[in-house]
Amino acid sequence: MVNWKIEENGFDEEKATGLGNKFLTGNGYMGIRGTLEEFKREQFPAINLSGIYDQVGNGWREPLNAPNGLFTRILAAGEEYALPEKECLSHKMTLDFRHGIFHRETAFQTVKGKVLLETQRFASMDEKHLICLKVKITPSFDGSLEVLTGIDGDVWDINGPHYDKVETGTEEEVICALGITHENKDEVVVCESFDAAFAAEEVTESAGRKIVRHLKLTVKAGEEYTFYKYISVYTSKDLQGYKEEAKALAVQAKSKGYESLYAKHCSKWEEVWNVSEVLIEGDDEAMESLNYSLYHLHSIAPRHSKSLSIAARGLSGQTYKGAVFWDTEMFMLDFFLFTEPEVAKTLLKYRIDTLEGAKKKAKGYGFNGAFYAWESQEGGFDACSDYNVTDVFTGRPMRTYFKDKQIHISAAVAYGIMRYVQFTGKDDLLKEGGAEVIIECAKFYYSLLVKRVNKDCYELWDVIGPDEYHERVNNNAYTNRMAKLTFDSAVNILENYTEQDSVLYKELYNKFKDAAEHLYIPSPDKETGVIEQFDGYEQLEEVTVSEVKSRLLHEKEYWGGAYGVASHTKVIKQADVVTMVNLFSGEYDKDTLYKNWAYYEPRTEHGSSLSACMYSMLACKCDMAEKAYPFFIKSAKADLVDGGKQWAGLIYIGGTHPAASGGAYMTAVEGFGGLHIENGTLKAESKLPDGWSKLSFKVYYLGELHQVTITKEEARVEKIN
Amino acid sequence: MVNWKIEENGFDEEKATGLGNKFLTGNGYMGIRGTLEEFKREQFPAINLSGIYDQVGNGWREPLNAPNGLFTRILAAGEEYALPEKECLSHKMTLDFRHGIFHRETAFQTVKGKVLLETQRFASMDEKHLICLKVKITPSFDGSLEVLTGIDGDVWDINGPHYDKVETGTEEEVICALGITHENKDEVVVCESFDAAFAAEEVTESAGRKIVRHLKLTVKAGEEYTFYKYISVYTSKDLQGYKEEAKALAVQAKSKGYESLYAKHCSKWEEVWNVSEVLIEGDDEAMESLNYSLYHLHSIAPRHSKSLSIAARGLSGQTYKGAVFWDTEMFMLDFFLFTEPEVAKTLLKYRIDTLEGAKKKAKGYGFNGAFYAWESQEGGFDACSDYNVTDVFTGRPMRTYFKDKQIHISAAVAYGIMRYVQFTGKDDLLKEGGAEVIIECAKFYYSLLVKRVNKDCYELWDVIGPDEYHERVNNNAYTNRMAKLTFDSAVNILENYTEQDSVLYKELYNKFKDAAEHLYIPSPDKETGVIEQFDGYEQLEEVTVSEVKSRLLHEKEYWGGAYGVASHTKVIKQADVVTMVNLFSGEYDKDTLYKNWAYYEPRTEHGSSLSACMYSMLACKCDMAEKAYPFFIKSAKADLVDGGKQWAGLIYIGGTHPAASGGAYMTAVEGFGGLHIENGTLKAESKLPDGWSKLSFKVYYLGELHQVTITKEEARVEKIN
Repeated sequence: MVNWKIEENGFDEEKATGLGNKFLTGNGYMGIRGTLEEFKREQFPAINLSGIYDQVGNGWREPLNAPNGLFTRILAAGEEYALPEKECLSHKMTLDFRHGIFHRETAFQTVKGKVLLETQRFASMDEKHLICLKVKITPSFDGSLEVLTGIDGDVWDINGPHYDKVETGTEEEVICALGITHENKDEVVVCESFDAAFAAEEVTESAGRKIVRHLKLTVKAGEEYTFYKYISVYTSKDLQGYKEEAKALAVQAKSKGYESLYAKHCSKWEEVWNVSEVLIEGDDEAMESLNYSLYHLHSIAPRHSKSLSIAARGLSGQTYKGAVFWDTEMFMLDFFLFTEPEVAKTLLKYRIDTLEGAKKKAKGYGFNGAFYAWESQEGGFDACSDYNVTDVFTGRPMRTYFKDKQIHISAAVAYGIMRYVQFTGKDDLLKEGGAEVIIECAKFYYSLLVKRVNKDCYELWDVIGPDEYHERVNNNAYTNRMAKLTFDSAVNILENYTEQDSVLYKELYNKFKDAAEHLYIPSPDKETGVIEQFDGYEQLEEVTVSEVKSRLLHEKEYWGGAYGVASHTKVIKQADVVTMVNLFSGEYDKDTLYKNWAYYEPRTEHGSSLSACMYSMLACKCDMAEKAYPFFIKSAKADLVDGGKQWAGLIYIGGTHPAASGGAYMTAVEGFGGLHIENGTLKAESKLPDGWSKLSFKVYYLGELHQVTITKEEARVEKIN
Repeated sequence: MVNWKIEENGFDEEKATGLGNKFLTGNGYMGIRGTLEEFKREQFPAINLSGIYDQVGNGWREPLNAPNGLFTRILAAGEEYALPEKECLSHKMTLDFRHGIFHRETAFQTVKGKVLLETQRFASMDEKHLICLKVKITPSFDGSLEVLTGIDGDVWDINGPHYDKVETGTEEEVICALGITHENKDEVVVCESFDAAFAAEEVTESAGRKIVRHLKLTVKAGEEYTFYKYISVYTSKDLQGYKEEAKALAVQAKSKGYESLYAKHCSKWEEVWNVSEVLIEGDDEAMESLNYSLYHLHSIAPRHSKSLSIAARGLSGQTYKGAVFWDTEMFMLDFFLFTEPEVAKTLLKYRIDTLEGAKKKAKGYGFNGAFYAWESQEGGFDACSDYNVTDVFTGRPMRTYFKDKQIHISAAVAYGIMRYVQFTGKDDLLKEGGAEVIIECAKFYYSLLVKRVNKDCYELWDVIGPDEYHERVNNNAYTNRMAKLTFDSAVNILENYTEQDSVLYKELYNKFKDAAEHLYIPSPDKETGVIEQFDGYEQLEEVTVSEVKSRLLHEKEYWGGAYGVASHTKVIKQADVVTMVNLFSGEYDKDTLYKNWAYYEPRTEHGSSLSACMYSMLACKCDMAEKAYPFFIKSAKADLVDGGKQWAGLIYIGGTHPAASGGAYMTAVEGFGGLHIENGTLKAESKLPDGWSKLSFKVYYLGELHQVTITKEEARVEKIN
């Protein structure tokens, strides 16, 4: 039996930040960290918003956290009972990850006697601007209690404060807080209506950035005192009249009532699970971890928008600048493409709509076409710094080249678009700008091609591949192959979607065809079968990962860069050649796939959450399900277990890992399930690991939903009528 | 009146190492550091040998120091009186740099009374294997004295010991020490004969690596006790029978006698000065400094060989691995070409004879042709390490790219050969392999050329120019222009020295012509006139040299590399674009020359002794003799003043600076004297600085000696019949 709940018993302040990620709820518009209602900024609570950013001074530009409408504290005899400041008698948190319901239950010993505080909350899947919170207080004494509940505009920021000011106010029954951002004077408005099932003296108090209702109630031992808050969140970027909308939504929600909203929310979740749930018979742990991963993907899917992507740390906070990386196209896209193609389209439309930013970036470096942002924010602005790492020995910023040399990002975009075309069979995205994006990405790579005068091929020099520990290398196999894919795609576009007498066609067709044909793709070594990761990799020092690690003089020093402990060795950060041969596995025989897996795996640190799934998928393709399994579990549990990096020096870098979640999904369906397209037909193949007796899931292919059922004996793909 | 002597009064142990360079004597075969006869290895005495190297373990490969035949100490009452162990009453050292005569005079207060010790020595210019030493002892008391004098085989080594063993012995009247090297079992033999003008009891003693004559003499107050040593030095690489030769030379020298040998030595020096002396009327300091520089060049000129070059620190020790850099061709060659063309030929023959090493190096990196060693030892072996700098913060070696990216070295060789052809008017060197070298260098650059597919020119990427603080740049202007010079030279060779129906011609002519025409040479900016040092230099941080210096966290940290304080700024180590426009000044108008001088000078650290002369020469070409003057003085006094870097951490890096000496010469004759070739005719131009009323010197041009005389009013070049 799979349990769709996770639970945490007891309170440990040290763990609270990590649990903020693990117990996240969200609906794509916003993510609510799994933190407690009484938390102040020091404990990193956040209602993290998608697609809106702010920069203060020289700090990193990062997404906004809305004023915190969940804020609630109870008082007895004038004293606040709140974690972590007070000790508690007991504490339990649960997350129903089938329906995105957060619940907590805490008992405090007050001076007057025991009080049990319970809350339940959800970010509505039905109404993306709405958060519903239910608070139940059960005292074990007769007497009086107080409650403070309202909106805390003094939000947690990593590089803030992002609100130059926060205005608070009351309009009729609704209290509001309006934050005005520093950079663009964007506005974030939070309104909340309140409904109590008990009588209480109520005063609204505002001070600084906070506005609260101050309730004083007379209580009886053993009775339950329940109230509800309907919290609406809008920004000035959402629509005109956002302030009125916010107020109206808070009022309207109250009139609908909590139970009704809860039911609608749950039924929306059931709708998504109806298509996306993955059943694994024989391995509850795997099924639970995998679906927990899918829960996270669902919680951050931008269903409220037609053009928005997903940040590398989802909606779990401001880490990684809330920026969109290649993670979306290369690791998350398949899940949406297979289960909710319209979300996949939304993700890709974001790239289409940020083409201008990509063109500007390319031009800035003297190239043609579109060079997509390594860390993309609105408009395709590249939030990536030229100095991404601090030298722990000198405290100086180190020049890094992620932004300017990790050129494989544009190919990831082209790959995503073509994958959408392949799986949907539709050309809507191409017509809506996707074709132009691919042509522009091809133009970009074309302008980067170099040819040694005495060689007959084109090369790509001075790049960084997926393995970021080796900077400024020539002919990274992955990058070159992805650039070729881009040229091939552009040729395809020109052949099939462009008039052959158009200027565009005439100008570009032969160039791209020539580039696709002559771009150098490192091939497997004749003796070893191994593909060299980049020119000269084979000459690097042969040394184990643990030996490299033992050379660290400081636990936080960067392994890469010009002089890092890994830089001049064969030790790599993450799957690189393995990513390439996995993506293009059809071009290599199984022996070659295996040889590259076997060669690179022991040389990989897996220092990125993007690494394990690629090794896992490739292991499946090499018929090594047992070797694949631990990597699969690692991906699927990326947000379930502690151990992800939470801090880089004094900077919080924790958060959820949606790329790992997407990777776990891909491993399940494309790895163990062997899902692939063969001559235009969707096929599956049984590559199940030992304990799995059956794997089944639904996927969309060419607009139609298919049931895929895999047992040890067979793999069936059937259209669902 | 110019004084051809330098003098040092008093003894300061701190200064002794630096004075070892300043008071150097030498004859091209060997250099004798200006250290004292009593010094042991701790004080860095050395008889440094040219062209013979050894490596022990993982230490740097470096040249050999011969067993020290100068070793001499005096004793009174059994106690040694020697610097720096004992204090002295007075001490004076002089160097006659007209004739390469070292002299010292030291008074000790012994327990028995005062003793004056005087020595005079020279490395014979007439017989390159011979050192003559005269020792005079004048006691101020009656009684007994002892002298220890012989050969100390326990030599100073930086990365030694280079002798696995040192055998000592006596044959007839000669004592000998034979050192056997570690790497190749080469042998270095030192023999010395002894001649005393007084009677003494004499015992030969040997212990460990030392063999000495132990003299006991009875002395009278005020009398002089003089003896002579004739020290021969040979190596097994010199000729067969080197041991017998060494013994015979020591015996023969004794029979000729000190005065006779002294006279011959001096007359050889007069011969070289007869052509090379530069007369400056009105500025004795300049004339003295400049001729002192020329003294150093003469002292290390390999006149004993037909194929040998000069190390970057001459024969002053083992620093810089005794390796040959671009310094020889670009900074020292002109002096020899103008005053002693046969030495210039010897230097260039070294490059011809190390072509195989250069081809091997190119092949090792996957290139064609000849990639000369950045730090060349015998056979063209590149002694340069991939890790040339130590990170002061971590103690780790830092990957540097001098060896693999400083590709301009091959062009320096081609430049040197063509300059020889131009100034001698002879094709002997071309026929003796020079033509082949140039073709191979052109092949090398050809194999490095890259072409962006959408540009119509060739480029050179990922190089280091003369300014080593900026690594791995594209299109370094100097490098590209020097590569073009190589292609032009190769075309010239093919046109004039090759059959047009030969395979070589057909295969290469069009390629090189095309390369020379289409290689991208950064041109002066239309508005500012400034030539960009490399792609993207203009985007670097604009900051002063002193600001960059103030950012150092450790005085010894490296300014360059990936993260050095200068690396991401416009601050450069040494003349780079200025070297280029100075070499190719005829291709730019005077305004452009000036604008580049004015732009780059304030951005230059002058952290290399190769920098000042280029700024000085270019200033002359811009008619700014007054701005040129301080740079000229800096070059000319590079070895006269203290202040050159003597230590890098715990590693001794001091030594003489022959490139600065050569640069001072070039500045005098080509800068202030405006010497140049115009349509095949040697011309001069008066660019004299204020204080100079007349500058005159002799130069060879097309095999004939010319007298050049420059005053404020005129510049005359006359053939000397």
